[in-house]
Amino acid sequence: MEHQEHQSCIRACDACAAACDHCATACLSEQDVAHMAECIKSDMDCADICRLASAVMARGSSRAKDICSLCASICNACAAECEKHRHEHCKQCAEACRNCAKECRAMGQ
Amino acid sequence: MEHQEHQSCIRACDACAAACDHCATACLSEQDVAHMAECIKSDMDCADICRLASAVMARGSSRAKDICSLCASICNACAAECEKHRHEHCKQCAEACRNCAKECRAMGQ
Amino acid sequence: MEHQEHQSCIRACDACAAACDHCATACLSEQDVAHMAECIKSDMDCADICRLASAVMARGSSRAKDICSLCASICNACAAECEKHRHEHCKQCAEACRNCAKECRAMGQ
Amino acid sequence: MEHQEHQSCIRACDACAAACDHCATACLSEQDVAHMAECIKSDMDCADICRLASAVMARGSSRAKDICSLCASICNACAAECEKHRHEHCKQCAEACRNCAKECRAMGQ
Repeated sequence: MEHQEHQSCIRACDACAAACDHCATACLSEQDVAHMAECIKSDMDCADICRLASAVMARGSSRAKDICSLCASICNACAAECEKHRHEHCKQCAEACRNCAKECRAMGQ
Repeated sequence: MEHQEHQSCIRACDACAAACDHCATACLSEQDVAHMAECIKSDMDCADICRLASAVMARGSSRAKDICSLCASICNACAAECEKHRHEHCKQCAEACRNCAKECRAMGQ
Repeated sequence: MEHQEHQSCIRACDACAAACDHCATACLSEQDVAHMAECIKSDMDCADICRLASAVMARGSSRAKDICSLCASICNACAAECEKHRHEHCKQCAEACRNCAKECRAMGQ
Repeated sequence: MEHQEHQSCIRACDACAAACDHCATACLSEQDVAHMAECIKSDMDCADICRLASAVMARGSSRAKDICSLCASICNACAAECEKHRHEHCKQCAEACRNCAKECRAMGQ
């Protein structure tokens, strides 16, 4: 049953989407918000592709591998952006992104 | 920090979305698939609103209450549909929907 | 056929989602980005609910009215926020939001 | 302004998502619904990736090309599935998918 099989990757995607959405909003409340624009943008892309990856895995879709491969790449890019910043939400987001990228890369193979 | 505050409801929404997506696909493989059409349709609506509710909570949105209230109603309707069927995926989906409805109702108040 | 019936409202939702997504990114490039935080947040919520409303109408969902009612309210709130700002993307977004709210309110009745 | 630049592709994605969502629901009402399972599944994947592609283009995302490339591939696969069936909604969906694939391929280059 695909849903159970992919459970670890689904959870990583869901956790990453939540971390990205939270990071985006938290960035908007930072004093240096202009400096956070790229981080907010990559958070938005990453949250969206993570939710799509989660959905297609839960549906056992034949395209789950392709979508997870792209998701891994977008997660790593988002992590690299978040790692430039010292905010706690950026650190937590980077960690969630790296974990999700690892899970999605394994799925995509 | 809203993200942490709403964590239990976010997890319930994510779990419900995955259960609904899995149930929809599994219904399509059942022999009595024509009989499962309403279940598949309610699964699709429920998965979508659960992912939206999860996102707005993670963003700490001012509209999270409104969206969670509607999500609770859609989850309960999906549970009621799933409870008509004897398939294991329907039972699991109904349970995830009832749990999510309870969490979302509490959030929406 | 619901898809055709709702075509005008689906198009208004799609146009509003695109205007909101564009406005959010454009706000992030403005010099007064800290001042645009609420606008960016309401753009994100509005884009998401508009895409959900579009999807449920295209599927002829039994919950389309409920979702369109909530979408109308979120669109009007987003328009009110955008109308506070002088940027061209905010003006265009407010217009798309008001049009979508009108269509969604009619759908929701 | 990316939003305007990509307008033709955004519209093709939105039209394809609506056609896929409509086709999925319409398939569920067909007498030979068991025969339509693959079509319904590919409709769901295609609608989801089209909405994501539309969103990232409207946001002027740096990952729009990657997402549009994958979207083109998923649209073509959905068209190929829909072209196996004689239903009017399948024909319309296949046409929307082919058009969207063409636009997304051009975007992705």
